[in-house]
Amino acid sequence: MIELWLVGIGTGNPRHLTAEARDALAGADAILIPEKGAGKDDLAALRHAICDAAAAGVPRHGFALPRRDPAIADYAARVEAWHDRIAEVWIETLDAALPRGGRAAFLVWGDPSLYDSTLRIADRVARERPLSLRVVPGITAIQALTAGHAIPLNRLGGPVTITTGRRLRAEGWPEGADTVVVMLDEGGAFATLPPEGISIWWSAYAGMTQEIRIAGPLAAVCDQIVARRAEARAAHGWIMDIYLMRRD
Amino acid sequence: MIELWLVGIGTGNPRHLTAEARDALAGADAILIPEKGAGKDDLAALRHAICDAAAAGVPRHGFALPRRDPAIADYAARVEAWHDRIAEVWIETLDAALPRGGRAAFLVWGDPSLYDSTLRIADRVARERPLSLRVVPGITAIQALTAGHAIPLNRLGGPVTITTGRRLRAEGWPEGADTVVVMLDEGGAFATLPPEGISIWWSAYAGMTQEIRIAGPLAAVCDQIVARRAEARAAHGWIMDIYLMRRD
Ligand SMILES: C[S@@+](CC[C@H](N)C(=O)[O-])C[C@H]1O[C@@H](n2cnc3c(N)ncnc32)[C@H](O)[C@@H]1O
Ligand SMILES: C[S@@+](CC[C@H](N)C(=O)[O-])C[C@H]1O[C@@H](n2cnc3c(N)ncnc32)[C@H](O)[C@@H]1O
Repeated sequence: MIELWLVGIGTGNPRHLTAEARDALAGADAILIPEKGAGKDDLAALRHAICDAAAAGVPRHGFALPRRDPAIADYAARVEAWHDRIAEVWIETLDAALPRGGRAAFLVWGDPSLYDSTLRIADRVARERPLSLRVVPGITAIQALTAGHAIPLNRLGGPVTITTGRRLRAEGWPEGADTVVVMLDEGGAFATLPPEGISIWWSAYAGMTQEIRIAGPLAAVCDQIVARRAEARAAHGWIMDIYLMRRD
Repeated sequence: MIELWLVGIGTGNPRHLTAEARDALAGADAILIPEKGAGKDDLAALRHAICDAAAAGVPRHGFALPRRDPAIADYAARVEAWHDRIAEVWIETLDAALPRGGRAAFLVWGDPSLYDSTLRIADRVARERPLSLRVVPGITAIQALTAGHAIPLNRLGGPVTITTGRRLRAEGWPEGADTVVVMLDEGGAFATLPPEGISIWWSAYAGMTQEIRIAGPLAAVCDQIVARRAEARAAHGWIMDIYLMRRD
């Protein structure tokens, strides 16, 4: 029997780690670490630094993260096939690391519930191997965004919509929404909205030492964010950004 | 000059505390602790236990939390007036605790951005006193909910709407929503929806030792949640609950 712990680690600030997450890593028999992927060496280094600090004695098992198959045109089908392949790699890695069972931990960026595939992959693994699944919550990019800007997420008693850059581009401002948080934006979906009456709070690398923040009326700061994003992306070789928008 | 740190502490599990939050409490010159309020002695005890563990040497300054004025009929006006009064009490307490300035910390349930008034109160304090404001993110009840049930928050690439029990009752299922998270429900707003095609994941005391979880099709578990909630509330003298609903 394998106990699989999905451990939220926060968004790049090693001090986002909770006591529960630290203990979950320290108490594991094996830690699974994806080794390739988006080519984000900074992020792989961060995972190792967290393990060095919290769980130096626990063996780490690297695995190569498969890539999405660009030949599959449909977005959902492409992602499903990719998750299937990752599940196969997890099973191989778990079988090799814990042949007699035990506790495996997997570090998840931010919180495991939010725009992350590990829970869906774990469900696939559970169909093939006896598995007991545990989730340890972590600080999300949404909270790193609001903490950095020192702003509330919601208006007083108001609703909040969380969505993706892809949807914002396709569908515009979400129906009935007051506050909108956008994640997984490949670049400047906010610039496709009519900017009148919208304010934006934008962060890149939220919680990390290189954090960048820009906030203001969308009409006034839109171009500045687009330029700053391109610049930062070129300088670091990668970027993760998130933003909150409110209608006045 | 006062540095005011609003420190997210998670939702009742002392191990939700992040390293950043722990250091923020330990590095404070004074910690402000509300002493009365909703009569939730368990929660006051938890705040003290967290301070004992993270910041035993830091002086704590209790203050009595004012009550809302039931004579103000309008909800928003009542809350605004209440925040004004709380800000006055904060100023008195800060002036007494740190007459020559320094760093004050305030423990915030969950994350300071989410359905919490401390940021709005801090803004009022900042109008009266020179204040530098810092926010430390914490695990939210939403994450304690999804971690306990080991479920993703969103469908693959799907949007999420966060709202209140009050709104759900008044407006029904939010327009265009796929996944809905409901907080601040005074009791069973989900029971006002036509239950067909809706699944629910419900947690009370999420993250705490007394955590209760019920999940299933709304039509099947609605009455069970209502009954269990009433029972738990009577047994503990208080309850905090949260739920996620998805349309099939
Ligand atoms: C695959 S999702 C993972 C989200 C993660 N599970 C969480 O809880 O934040 C990646 C997206 O999260 C956001 N994100 C994650 N970390 C971030 C950071 N440090 N700064 C800004 N955005 C971040 C970006 O929108 C990015 O496109
Ligand atoms: C005033 S709001 C504060 C939310 C908090 N700032 C957070 O980040 O979770 C209180 C509401 O949060 C939810 N909540 C907070 N703690 C909870 C817990 N341990 N279990 C279930 N729900 C909780 C409930 O919906 C409750 O009505």
